[in-house]
Amino acid sequence: MTTRRLTEHLPFGEKRDPRFFGQDILSVSQFDREDLETIFEVAHEMYGMVERIGTFDLLKGKVLTNLFYEPSTRTSSSFVAAIERLGGSVVQINNVTYSSVSKGETLQDTVKTMESYTDAIVLRHPEKGSAALAAAAASKPVINAGDGPGEHPTQALLDAYTIREEMGAIDGLTITMLGDLKYGRTVHSLAKLLTLYDVKINYVSPDILQMPELLVKEVDAAGIDQYETTDLDDVLADTDVLYVTRIQKERFENPNEYDMVKDSYVITPETLTMAKESMIVMHPLPRVGEIATEVDNDPRAAYFRQMEYGMYVRMALLALVLGRA
Amino acid sequence: MTTRRLTEHLPFGEKRDPRFFGQDILSVSQFDREDLETIFEVAHEMYGMVERIGTFDLLKGKVLTNLFYEPSTRTSSSFVAAIERLGGSVVQINNVTYSSVSKGETLQDTVKTMESYTDAIVLRHPEKGSAALAAAAASKPVINAGDGPGEHPTQALLDAYTIREEMGAIDGLTITMLGDLKYGRTVHSLAKLLTLYDVKINYVSPDILQMPELLVKEVDAAGIDQYETTDLDDVLADTDVLYVTRIQKERFENPNEYDMVKDSYVITPETLTMAKESMIVMHPLPRVGEIATEVDNDPRAAYFRQMEYGMYVRMALLALVLGRA
Amino acid sequence: MTTRRLTEHLPFGEKRDPRFFGQDILSVSQFDREDLETIFEVAHEMYGMVERIGTFDLLKGKVLTNLFYEPSTRTSSSFVAAIERLGGSVVQINNVTYSSVSKGETLQDTVKTMESYTDAIVLRHPEKGSAALAAAAASKPVINAGDGPGEHPTQALLDAYTIREEMGAIDGLTITMLGDLKYGRTVHSLAKLLTLYDVKINYVSPDILQMPELLVKEVDAAGIDQYETTDLDDVLADTDVLYVTRIQKERFENPNEYDMVKDSYVITPETLTMAKESMIVMHPLPRVGEIATEVDNDPRAAYFRQMEYGMYVRMALLALVLGRA
Repeated sequence: MTTRRLTEHLPFGEKRDPRFFGQDILSVSQFDREDLETIFEVAHEMYGMVERIGTFDLLKGKVLTNLFYEPSTRTSSSFVAAIERLGGSVVQINNVTYSSVSKGETLQDTVKTMESYTDAIVLRHPEKGSAALAAAAASKPVINAGDGPGEHPTQALLDAYTIREEMGAIDGLTITMLGDLKYGRTVHSLAKLLTLYDVKINYVSPDILQMPELLVKEVDAAGIDQYETTDLDDVLADTDVLYVTRIQKERFENPNEYDMVKDSYVITPETLTMAKESMIVMHPLPRVGEIATEVDNDPRAAYFRQMEYGMYVRMALLALVLGRA
Repeated sequence: MTTRRLTEHLPFGEKRDPRFFGQDILSVSQFDREDLETIFEVAHEMYGMVERIGTFDLLKGKVLTNLFYEPSTRTSSSFVAAIERLGGSVVQINNVTYSSVSKGETLQDTVKTMESYTDAIVLRHPEKGSAALAAAAASKPVINAGDGPGEHPTQALLDAYTIREEMGAIDGLTITMLGDLKYGRTVHSLAKLLTLYDVKINYVSPDILQMPELLVKEVDAAGIDQYETTDLDDVLADTDVLYVTRIQKERFENPNEYDMVKDSYVITPETLTMAKESMIVMHPLPRVGEIATEVDNDPRAAYFRQMEYGMYVRMALLALVLGRA
Repeated sequence: MTTRRLTEHLPFGEKRDPRFFGQDILSVSQFDREDLETIFEVAHEMYGMVERIGTFDLLKGKVLTNLFYEPSTRTSSSFVAAIERLGGSVVQINNVTYSSVSKGETLQDTVKTMESYTDAIVLRHPEKGSAALAAAAASKPVINAGDGPGEHPTQALLDAYTIREEMGAIDGLTITMLGDLKYGRTVHSLAKLLTLYDVKINYVSPDILQMPELLVKEVDAAGIDQYETTDLDDVLADTDVLYVTRIQKERFENPNEYDMVKDSYVITPETLTMAKESMIVMHPLPRVGEIATEVDNDPRAAYFRQMEYGMYVRMALLALVLGRA
């Protein structure tokens, strides 16, 4: 990975990449492969910096609004740690319903107020399209941290970055997605992002939770080889990256159907005896039994490292949109 | 505006203005015109500093308690951003009912505990007089961020500072207050503060929401020319500053009465065709329809800039009471 | 008190005391007297540092997770102020039930996620043993900030440190514990910690709220002289440290019993006329009437200073486990 020397930027003022500086991060589809390379390079720099010295005053003086209309401890904490590790600070807004909004303020007005105080806005909102609405109202960068059934682009970016850090490269890999592929926002976004690479994708799910046909067609149009099955054994031996997601009981009309399938998608140490030595297991977390805790000590268990990589990706995005990388 | 060079203070240690250092900010009535000049000068310095370099370590090492017994996203966030932009940090306490206080601790004990950890306390509390109670118990500065039907002095200060920044000076202006003038705490405090200046004030409201007679007398005693009407058209053409407030449905015993008046106090682009080119429209926000969003792009729409000025005023107050300006 | 010169450490990199660096703080019983001396020396340095210059970048670049599964404004705020006064920052997680955990995530997974973002974890949890569970899962330091009926070691440490700062030394003192000695976690932990010193302990409580026999035996085995009474007058004149705790009405099956005893354990200015000039009154706070507010101005009232000392002890612990003291 070519290294951008962030340390050189600081004394000479801001370095502004026009593809990112002042821009919003709303959807994975806004990026081409070169954009991803840039994000991953900067994230890798952040990784090295945190490992070596823990902090870096790249965003000193920058204040971030972390505006969460619904709770998401993981995403919220990751952004807080990201801005703080860059020397910036954060205005945290939780439980928004218990605030101005309950007085009827629009999202746009809240966002315009917060940008009058701070330099960028991370937004988590339960309604699809809300991030785009906020971005249209704001003149400062808005980062979509999940808009309901819409997008969660930083999750997809951290997933792709995890694959790259762990496997060295994304091209040439076989990626198996497991679990709820119908409703799982993370696997949808990751599949879209992977169309920028030369990969093979396997889908393993119960019949009623298959990857949506429209998305399969979109991925196919990009020339990606896809394979669908209900049985992990069919594809496990060839898998380089096993991306596990949670199957929610609520998705099943008939609870018995859930009970029938849930155990066949649980990863245990036994499962991994049939997998490559060099493969990795990912999961967006939280997990509720889909991966046995006994797997955690296996070096192939990458899901907690994945959380850490998420912080580096968010550090990179903040530095890029604020013109410091 | 004469400029106090804050940057010169830092290397030579703390500069302590005895009118502010260690003092509480409880009510607009504690200030004379010279005090306001000082606050506005320092706020203007803060403005320039944030525009130029974003941050400034004037309050490095200072920790602020932001103690909110009731939610106020806007005010709370403004103080957080203010202390962070000065290099200080914050201990945020929200939802106090869900904490020690539910164990029956008095406000005074909570305040005395928090001042043992931090350097100043911003207090928002639903009961009138609570800020004064807290200040009497504390030996460190207490800043009243709203005590129910009592005062909200930093709001009045930011309103006056907004007029000054936007119009160049306050003396000589015609200020029109519109909406709920009976219950609106912000217009009461602003009217009091304006008695320190040479202005004309117009009050436009439904009959049942007129400015309280007592306050009108107080303002009159200061030699201020006042005019009362139910019709904005009477005064709009002469208005330099139009201060819009929200009319709350709850104020009307009869909902029909509300429906009858609400639309006549809505500002639209059409309204502004009859106003001066050089005037400004202010609003304490949140708004719920009192100003059409189509007005936002008019350069006279000052309400989001007003939010930003609020942060500078709070930065100035923090620097002053902590002895660094 | 021999002084460890923290200021000398910074330029030469991290100084790592192997008894503390990377360790968890789970229970008072993990410390010997030499450990306490170290903690108190560092806390005393922190005290002097805050008094003189307010802040110190000893933990710059360090990020702390403050993970509170139940509210505790005092403890939480104290840790926030502690890390911020050392130049570090914090990821605050409150109301955990309203987050991932409500999606069923285990404490261990939450802790492993948070340690991927941050450098240490402060944990408050309603279940006994939870801190040890979290520490077993984490590879970074976990500090127990109260695990239900279990331990709250930083409270005991700050209590002992308060005695030391206020009285000069702990050896040779007569310490009287008053109130609910049966259920009071703080007095249990403090009594255990005091077995490392040469003290006399008096217990004053209603019969039904006496110190548990098992604990009395443990303290006795350490050679500590103990005396039990229902009447403060028996021991007040000889008392050097009066540690007052709250009697909770809920503890009594019969409310009348509560009404009978509650007033006899209230400290007033009159109470103190019978006490030594050099003694101190402590209380873990919050108080609900056990100490009359008229006592606050007596120089012997040490309970708000005790809060402040708590911050220094937490600063010391953070610096020690993070390898900077």
